[in-house]
Amino acid sequence: MSDTPKGWVVIAGLGPGAESMVIPEVQDVLAEATDVVGYIPYVKRIPPRAGLTLHASDNRVEVDRATQALEMAAAGQRVVVVSSGDPGVFAMASAVFEALEEGAKTQPAWLNLEIRVLPGITAMLAAAAAIGAPLGHDFAAINLSDNLKPWELIERRLQLVGEAGLAMAFYNPRSKSRPHQFERALEVLRAACGDDTLISFARDVTKPGQEILTVPLRDARPEMADMRTVVIVGNRDTRRVGSYVYTPRFAPGHQPGHQPAHHPAANTATKDA
Amino acid sequence: MSDTPKGWVVIAGLGPGAESMVIPEVQDVLAEATDVVGYIPYVKRIPPRAGLTLHASDNRVEVDRATQALEMAAAGQRVVVVSSGDPGVFAMASAVFEALEEGAKTQPAWLNLEIRVLPGITAMLAAAAAIGAPLGHDFAAINLSDNLKPWELIERRLQLVGEAGLAMAFYNPRSKSRPHQFERALEVLRAACGDDTLISFARDVTKPGQEILTVPLRDARPEMADMRTVVIVGNRDTRRVGSYVYTPRFAPGHQPGHQPAHHPAANTATKDA
Repeated sequence: MSDTPKGWVVIAGLGPGAESMVIPEVQDVLAEATDVVGYIPYVKRIPPRAGLTLHASDNRVEVDRATQALEMAAAGQRVVVVSSGDPGVFAMASAVFEALEEGAKTQPAWLNLEIRVLPGITAMLAAAAAIGAPLGHDFAAINLSDNLKPWELIERRLQLVGEAGLAMAFYNPRSKSRPHQFERALEVLRAACGDDTLISFARDVTKPGQEILTVPLRDARPEMADMRTVVIVGNRDTRRVGSYVYTPRFAPGHQPGHQPAHHPAANTATKDA
Repeated sequence: MSDTPKGWVVIAGLGPGAESMVIPEVQDVLAEATDVVGYIPYVKRIPPRAGLTLHASDNRVEVDRATQALEMAAAGQRVVVVSSGDPGVFAMASAVFEALEEGAKTQPAWLNLEIRVLPGITAMLAAAAAIGAPLGHDFAAINLSDNLKPWELIERRLQLVGEAGLAMAFYNPRSKSRPHQFERALEVLRAACGDDTLISFARDVTKPGQEILTVPLRDARPEMADMRTVVIVGNRDTRRVGSYVYTPRFAPGHQPGHQPAHHPAANTATKDA
């Protein structure tokens, strides 16, 4: 009964880069949008059309961008906030909810806004697919940037998660502003996971020029990673077969011998069970 | 120069259930396939067509199914192995590489087969999107089934990862054959993460009848989960805003006060940086 049309915010994942990895539901919601908000290179991926306003902003302004999206939705606009990968993994979804929590203190009506998150193929899973199946057993996703947490906490997490025997995928492994930290991370990982554990560097995944490099932790060097690289460390049982790297579904030490394909235990498995 | 046409195996993720969440690249490869292999309910999702043979098999035969796919590819067929979610997350990709490693002992030519993994929206990320953004900070993915690892190792992982302060997503939380284990997992989580930490139960995500329930760990009951449920435990800073649950991008304890949207630190963030 209000004069204001019903606005909404959808936070949508554009996947790792290839257009063939964007889910159809994201395309559908983009077709209904009046506004697209996001970091410049992601907004560039959206084809312009009549009735759609593109709002590209620089990086490091996630909460400003999220607030702008909520303001427009409150005014009745249909806003898509675009993220690369999956918006819920080190990306815009949490920033929108942070902005919502803050903004609702002065505009409580924001709590009734329709907000929806649409998942995407996150870089870690695209990288894992390009490598083989290094995340085929328990794993952790860790952001190595110390912008949002103290470096000491990152080191502690690498130690504990390594001790737990999980594979790990790292976002933001290395930047110019903190060149020594990734070198230190490799030291911590060697101590926690062993020198022989395989580490893979996946750069520009699904994009032209994609590069994949796998070495034992012993031979890993900091310059193998930059901010366009997803780094995946396996567990102690991660191995090569042909040109692929994979982690068996079995826990290291729990594999009942190396099994012929028809051994029954080899077939009691996975989420299909 | 061989008489045998060039076969291949693609291990493809069908996402959590909704057809609108299958990436176009998976549809493209299905259009080129001669054979589809997989667990019955996933193969049922593939529309039949002339020239395509559907091979549906029961669960718990992952390695047999993978071996069959490799045999067909070696004979020149174009085989898609379908998984739900992402094939690299507790699914068929590792099973195919296990079968490859085993089979190559007697048929070394298998190592030259073209094998490709295509990612999908894994249940954990679809569940997180439906809940809000509970995995917006560091997190772990853990399979709670003890088919492939000893239960003691699962408990130890929950303790260490909880101590590290990561959120956690659980696959296969509870089954009829091991009803007491999830109850024990909740006890371990309460001790490691605190009674107030939020836990979400997402059942039949993206499917008709999707249900989402969030409670503090104190109030969590084993019967809130079954094998169709993805369970997500937040970290100590995971919170509610409106009808959503999210984890701030900041580490608990590192958030420099609750920030106005224009505080510079609130904007130094995420993988967009």
